[in-house]
Amino acid sequence: MDNKLNLKFKLWLEKDGKVFGEGPYQLLAGVESLGSLRKSAQRMNMSYSLAHKLIKSLEERLQYPLIERTVGGQGGGGSQLTNEAKHLMKQYDTFMNDAEVTLNKLFQSHFPEEKKDS
Amino acid sequence: MDNKLNLKFKLWLEKDGKVFGEGPYQLLAGVESLGSLRKSAQRMNMSYSLAHKLIKSLEERLQYPLIERTVGGQGGGGSQLTNEAKHLMKQYDTFMNDAEVTLNKLFQSHFPEEKKDS
Repeated sequence: MDNKLNLKFKLWLEKDGKVFGEGPYQLLAGVESLGSLRKSAQRMNMSYSLAHKLIKSLEERLQYPLIERTVGGQGGGGSQLTNEAKHLMKQYDTFMNDAEVTLNKLFQSHFPEEKKDS
Repeated sequence: MDNKLNLKFKLWLEKDGKVFGEGPYQLLAGVESLGSLRKSAQRMNMSYSLAHKLIKSLEERLQYPLIERTVGGQGGGGSQLTNEAKHLMKQYDTFMNDAEVTLNKLFQSHFPEEKKDS
């Protein structure tokens, strides 16, 4: 049992409704590491058609492509991230990390009695 | 239609599960201004029994009282906040305001291309 009051938070980016958060980030990260949207969706227990719809909807709102198909090669083609997608992921990732550190510091300064034991 | 990417967030405090966020804050604020838990619950379209349960559960987790009954007087008694509740609300309120300002600044520094038109 945790006797301290802890800060919890959820951050996401919106443009005409929910657009980018942890789910899309993980889906794109999977495309990057697995070279395939199908495999990335599978790893998240998401159907390929839902993953495809999600990416299409994101691309429409952001107005740039996130994924491009790779053709041929040993694996018979797959998917890879566009430079724009890589840039967005990096921005999101560093922002999220900085936000977490900053929020926790701010929480400790406002709730000093909840400071973790050192 | 908003053409910018915007930051959205949700912050709350936890101690053995969800404990304090916007709902409890508004409920307590209503007790303070209306002098009655019943009236405060009513204003939020919450049943009195649910409001009462919520306060009891919060008090158990926080291990201090939030509301005390006032007896007698013209209105025949009601409820008011304890000093601990006032302190918690003040901490929460200033933390939330600072967090909002800080997160928005951080977002603009990480996503400079989404900066609001000035």
